[in-house]
Amino acid sequence: MSELRWDPFIDSWVAIVKERGRRPVDFITGRKRIETTVCPFCYGHENKTPAEVYALRPDGSPADQPGWRVRVIPNKFPILRIEGQIESRGEGLYDVKNGIGAHEVIIETPDHDRHPADLRATELADVFHAFRSRLIDLRRDKRFRHIVIYKNHGVEAGATIPHTHSLLLALPIIPPHLCTALRASREHFRRKERCLMCDLLAGELADGRRLVRVDTDFAVFTPFASRYPFSLRIVPRHHQHDFSMLTDQMMVALGETVRDVLGRLRSVLRDPPFNLVLHNAPSTLPQPGKPDFWSSLSCDYHWYFEIIPKIMEPAGFEWGTGFFINPTSPEEAARYLREAAV
Amino acid sequence: MSELRWDPFIDSWVAIVKERGRRPVDFITGRKRIETTVCPFCYGHENKTPAEVYALRPDGSPADQPGWRVRVIPNKFPILRIEGQIESRGEGLYDVKNGIGAHEVIIETPDHDRHPADLRATELADVFHAFRSRLIDLRRDKRFRHIVIYKNHGVEAGATIPHTHSLLLALPIIPPHLCTALRASREHFRRKERCLMCDLLAGELADGRRLVRVDTDFAVFTPFASRYPFSLRIVPRHHQHDFSMLTDQMMVALGETVRDVLGRLRSVLRDPPFNLVLHNAPSTLPQPGKPDFWSSLSCDYHWYFEIIPKIMEPAGFEWGTGFFINPTSPEEAARYLREAAV
Repeated sequence: MSELRWDPFIDSWVAIVKERGRRPVDFITGRKRIETTVCPFCYGHENKTPAEVYALRPDGSPADQPGWRVRVIPNKFPILRIEGQIESRGEGLYDVKNGIGAHEVIIETPDHDRHPADLRATELADVFHAFRSRLIDLRRDKRFRHIVIYKNHGVEAGATIPHTHSLLLALPIIPPHLCTALRASREHFRRKERCLMCDLLAGELADGRRLVRVDTDFAVFTPFASRYPFSLRIVPRHHQHDFSMLTDQMMVALGETVRDVLGRLRSVLRDPPFNLVLHNAPSTLPQPGKPDFWSSLSCDYHWYFEIIPKIMEPAGFEWGTGFFINPTSPEEAARYLREAAV
Repeated sequence: MSELRWDPFIDSWVAIVKERGRRPVDFITGRKRIETTVCPFCYGHENKTPAEVYALRPDGSPADQPGWRVRVIPNKFPILRIEGQIESRGEGLYDVKNGIGAHEVIIETPDHDRHPADLRATELADVFHAFRSRLIDLRRDKRFRHIVIYKNHGVEAGATIPHTHSLLLALPIIPPHLCTALRASREHFRRKERCLMCDLLAGELADGRRLVRVDTDFAVFTPFASRYPFSLRIVPRHHQHDFSMLTDQMMVALGETVRDVLGRLRSVLRDPPFNLVLHNAPSTLPQPGKPDFWSSLSCDYHWYFEIIPKIMEPAGFEWGTGFFINPTSPEEAARYLREAAV
């Protein structure tokens, strides 16, 4: 029989249909490939992109020239624009803000053909340094209330350039899923004076059936009420609401975790398209005389990475209701991933 | 510049990226086709499905034989099972219910090749009669708290059999999007003593830019903060929280509206795959001595059909945040649909 499961962190019910028992092999189909003629993310093509806003490069080497290890540029086709003031107005019962924000690209390696699972832990730590640096810089901009960093790997997951990269969006609003998690976290804290994600993680560590990997700093598990088959949470084991609080040492540990987990997914699902999303606390710094409800909830939050293999399409039912049907139990998915040859 | 828009009914921000200005032609791609050898939904194959639970057929004609106009059967591969009692338990901080529910198929016509836009208004009214009858019947079952009826048209939208049909799921929980809309509707009613959707609809009728079609009984418009390009709401003009309150006459009017709108979508987007979802009030009847929070909000709700053409895939950003990026403004989409040759 299938099971309906509720996860307090996402405040949602999900159907886990065990009978369907979809195994990794059921999700392995032909992957689409992107063809590029001239890749704007390769060495020597720095002039094909907007000027870099951040790069890790040897001391003293000039901007927008080869030599960088990680390079951050504004998106050439941004969905939000950096210039201007936020204007907010009502339109009948609706609300409108103009599309002010930042839309940046983090090029993770100069090597066109590297698979993200083949980046070394120290190379991934470089990428996370870039994340941290951009978070800290953009957070100073009082117009932005939240910064999302995400990665689309593979055509089916939305990648338009094959050269491995992540994307950053600084938003003047708090996205709906974050509102839900902030409300749930605050409610839990109010009752128990403990962090909701810390409590969930303690339960996962004690139970063990959904664990994929644990070390001193990070735990990886398949969520109890996973909406998508083989989706994962990578969670810092010690409470931390904000990604930019990561130490250099923890960034290398996170690099080891991400490298290992991406390798397991590649092995089990044969290089699936996937999305990786950094779920972080809201960005707003307290502003004198302008209290902000959502940022007041920040410290209750617990940041994490979510990985969603893009191997199944939600249909009308999921889109219309927000209720997801997952044909692979998280316990089975975790077992496959634990047993993967890496 | 793009615009961020908030819709109180879904309590969500959406980015409308006007610069992208995607036109219908940008969404017209090769559609996949399903091949079937023997269609279980055709006349003469009634024995290939579970026994019918409802059918519109000439008086006195035997069940599970040809002659029906609309036929409802249990899903052969249900994700929820009808037998058994709901069992609910905690598992640490999580919640679990066993997968009790109903999963039915509404076969809308005996004609294998009919496109839903080619069903006559009276034939669609027959389909809605089946919806109403199943809602009323299943609602008597105290185990179910909500009934979703939805349609997947086209492979990309999740259809697995080409013969036109809808699906019904009776659930022991209230889906997340409905919870949001119920909360928003109650809050609005508490303040204004008016229905939220009625107020939104009055605004749309006064504004006109997002209207696709209006008659005495129904209005069709592209939502102000549409998450998906060319998505539509079909809304009864006079407050009605529950689809099963529709009169026979209104069902024919609804049939005319749905037929017209599906024809417009087919013309503008060249037979796009789409999902149609009936958003209805929760199903639970008041039970003596067992007050139910969600059903107490039912009368504040306003039922509607949502049509979502499946012409664009949400990427990691949308899945991870619940914040959607829509490259076609609802005003443009409505204009294309109004001007469509039908």
